[in-house]
Amino acid sequence: MSKDIPYKIYLEENEMPKQWYNVRADMKKKPAPILNPGTLQEVTVEELSHIFCEELAKQEVDNTTPYFDIPEEILNFYKMYRPSPLVRAYCLEKKLGTPAHIYYKFEGNNTSGSHKLNSAIAQAYYAKKQGLKGVTTETGAGQWGTALSMACSYFDLDCQVYMVKVSYEQKPFRREVMRTYGAKVTPSPSMNTEVGRKINAEFPGTTGSLGCAISEAVEAAVSQEGYRYVLGSVLSQVLLHQSVIGLETKAALDKYGIKADTIIGCAGGGSNLGGLISPFAGQMLRNEADYEIIAVEPASCPSLTRGTYAYDFCDTGKVCPLAKMYTLGSGFIPSANHAGGLRYHGMSSVVSELYDQGLIRATSVEQTSVFQAAQMFARVEGILPAPESSHAIKVAIDEALKCKESGQAKNIVFGLTGTGYFDMVAYQKFNDGEMSDYIPTDEELQKSISTLPQVNL
Amino acid sequence: MSKDIPYKIYLEENEMPKQWYNVRADMKKKPAPILNPGTLQEVTVEELSHIFCEELAKQEVDNTTPYFDIPEEILNFYKMYRPSPLVRAYCLEKKLGTPAHIYYKFEGNNTSGSHKLNSAIAQAYYAKKQGLKGVTTETGAGQWGTALSMACSYFDLDCQVYMVKVSYEQKPFRREVMRTYGAKVTPSPSMNTEVGRKINAEFPGTTGSLGCAISEAVEAAVSQEGYRYVLGSVLSQVLLHQSVIGLETKAALDKYGIKADTIIGCAGGGSNLGGLISPFAGQMLRNEADYEIIAVEPASCPSLTRGTYAYDFCDTGKVCPLAKMYTLGSGFIPSANHAGGLRYHGMSSVVSELYDQGLIRATSVEQTSVFQAAQMFARVEGILPAPESSHAIKVAIDEALKCKESGQAKNIVFGLTGTGYFDMVAYQKFNDGEMSDYIPTDEELQKSISTLPQVNL
Repeated sequence: MSKDIPYKIYLEENEMPKQWYNVRADMKKKPAPILNPGTLQEVTVEELSHIFCEELAKQEVDNTTPYFDIPEEILNFYKMYRPSPLVRAYCLEKKLGTPAHIYYKFEGNNTSGSHKLNSAIAQAYYAKKQGLKGVTTETGAGQWGTALSMACSYFDLDCQVYMVKVSYEQKPFRREVMRTYGAKVTPSPSMNTEVGRKINAEFPGTTGSLGCAISEAVEAAVSQEGYRYVLGSVLSQVLLHQSVIGLETKAALDKYGIKADTIIGCAGGGSNLGGLISPFAGQMLRNEADYEIIAVEPASCPSLTRGTYAYDFCDTGKVCPLAKMYTLGSGFIPSANHAGGLRYHGMSSVVSELYDQGLIRATSVEQTSVFQAAQMFARVEGILPAPESSHAIKVAIDEALKCKESGQAKNIVFGLTGTGYFDMVAYQKFNDGEMSDYIPTDEELQKSISTLPQVNL
Repeated sequence: MSKDIPYKIYLEENEMPKQWYNVRADMKKKPAPILNPGTLQEVTVEELSHIFCEELAKQEVDNTTPYFDIPEEILNFYKMYRPSPLVRAYCLEKKLGTPAHIYYKFEGNNTSGSHKLNSAIAQAYYAKKQGLKGVTTETGAGQWGTALSMACSYFDLDCQVYMVKVSYEQKPFRREVMRTYGAKVTPSPSMNTEVGRKINAEFPGTTGSLGCAISEAVEAAVSQEGYRYVLGSVLSQVLLHQSVIGLETKAALDKYGIKADTIIGCAGGGSNLGGLISPFAGQMLRNEADYEIIAVEPASCPSLTRGTYAYDFCDTGKVCPLAKMYTLGSGFIPSANHAGGLRYHGMSSVVSELYDQGLIRATSVEQTSVFQAAQMFARVEGILPAPESSHAIKVAIDEALKCKESGQAKNIVFGLTGTGYFDMVAYQKFNDGEMSDYIPTDEELQKSISTLPQVNL
């Protein structure tokens, strides 16, 4: 049978999903509602609409509608870089000598270099449809900012990106890609916003933080007529849009009669993992199938494996809604791990609830072992993976090696979220043997978790 | 009919070409033979085999065999990143308001970021098959070095890359990709070779040149047991391997009953252009079809449009064989154009001969207009193109706008050779309005052309 499976399974354009899937609809126990940061009470769509586009605010709180039609304009944009291939890792299998069949869904074949574009184009579309002038956002490593720049350029929307100052200076190439797409990229903290000016005055010479950039982006959105704030992960609306990854993966597997046994994704805020697993978790929730789902997080930022399931702020600045999630505390400062996209203190409330219900298991891995896996993968499969994605590679390899021991021919599917072309400083550190690992102590975690807000619903 | 054409035409794996096509076989007047640089007489396969692998030396001089089987090991590697998509540029057409149908063959969806991998894997395969320990090469901008590193890693061959010192220092990310694939990257001029030591002594602090790097790579190959030198462009063997681009393009067009009218490619050494047009030029040579073929070169390095058709050295160091080609003289120093891959004084002898026979027309374009086209393309088609590839984009847009004036619905096909992720310094200059254009004067060209070697065959 394996002989009939090509190296790359591409769906035809007419086989692409025409609807997003909302896994919350199939959950008997729903994710807890998100809260207004001012009142600590369940937020209304109207309140959310001051920050987010109306349509997105509705998607954010919708726990019951299983499918949302993908608007034709978004489908057309998807056609420029989707369907993404589901790749059979023949060369990796051979290298490992494993009887397992390894597949990866490769989301890196677009200029943003990651899966982030799937939600960026949706958020830009709804902003345009609402007649907005533009959107604001923050970016750390830069994948999300790049994706949003591309999406806004396509719909002729103004795009204002607050980029953490240290990244702005150290990652000039990401910045230039955004500028090429017409985005205004501002190093944060800036002097454009009240919060930025305040932080600059308090901490002269600061190189910024994601929390600060979020606060600036939100202030910029609410203080400009015709602007809203957009976010690339954590939110349930983002997981909804990212379900296109899982739907395509499932369609490609079904096309060749392949039943996945193990599904693996890296987990930062949960956008990729949630998107990849949604349709599979849906089957599990409906008792139609069973899968082993593994979330992989960095040992330096272990929200699922060592965090607490509680209400917390989604941002350090405490201006965004609160969500119930596995969290290390919004004051947790992750070490300078090179997988910038995974350095987030919390986890999507949908992924958190599925994890709490036992549908997902989680594991954490250390940075050096991740880059060893990345290098091996690059050499045999020809794709230079992003540090974030390499967390999933590491565990996929481990699982395939377990199959080698047990002799099982499992079908292992993992999400390869993006490429590492803009992460060569990290690879250089690895190539030079200068990469270090860091695991927070129990005391550190207790300290940051002890700052969780008191919520009485 | 256009409704039935998807955004991206992917061939099935079993539709991929199984043979390379050698356009020389269909040329009544053949390209002139290459010469031994020592004797200035036609070089023999045996002489060539001191520098190149035997099989490649044979391919280099074979003017008569029309098809070469692609070895299975190479086909399997191709399957990891090929077939590459033939994309219908619906969004660009809409933006231009042209009745023309625009298609591009996108070769950038692999980690080397360009078409160079098509020949790198072939050259590495034949080196491995011959039992060699490794290969040496030079790289300027880094695409070729990256591709060769990937290919050598796959076949477990040692890979020694002499990288022009200024690029080594200014493009550390390219260097790190090569290192990640296990290549030894040495800034040139180095102290490893006699020629390198000599140049360092003569010009202390020099930042190197491609000519010098070639000389070092050739010396390193011939002075180490079990090594040969490999080259990523200009050679006829490279065009043979790159014919896979044209063969796939033609198969994809044929699959949808599309007859190309105009075929456009950027031209530096000719590897991409020659590969793209080979099967189409073959049809023209056999009087089976007619196409308008356009070679696009930078105005700063205009070998076809302003050069002379004569024997010249392929390298500044004068250690490689001589070829009859359109050339600006091997001593010509192109200005610091950002399309590093097009900064070459000469042109593939096959492309030169086809041009001389009138099957190809050539045009040159200035850098700033190329980046304007690149930016527009990036914004509407979602792909950030390499500066080299953007030369073809510029002329494809010009041709589509001519169709708008004339009302003709031509089918325009161009080669999008690669992505610009490692060229953000150039984009930054463009974004900041600091890009300049340079066109050599007639006097400058006359001076460099006057240094051509005297060849009496």
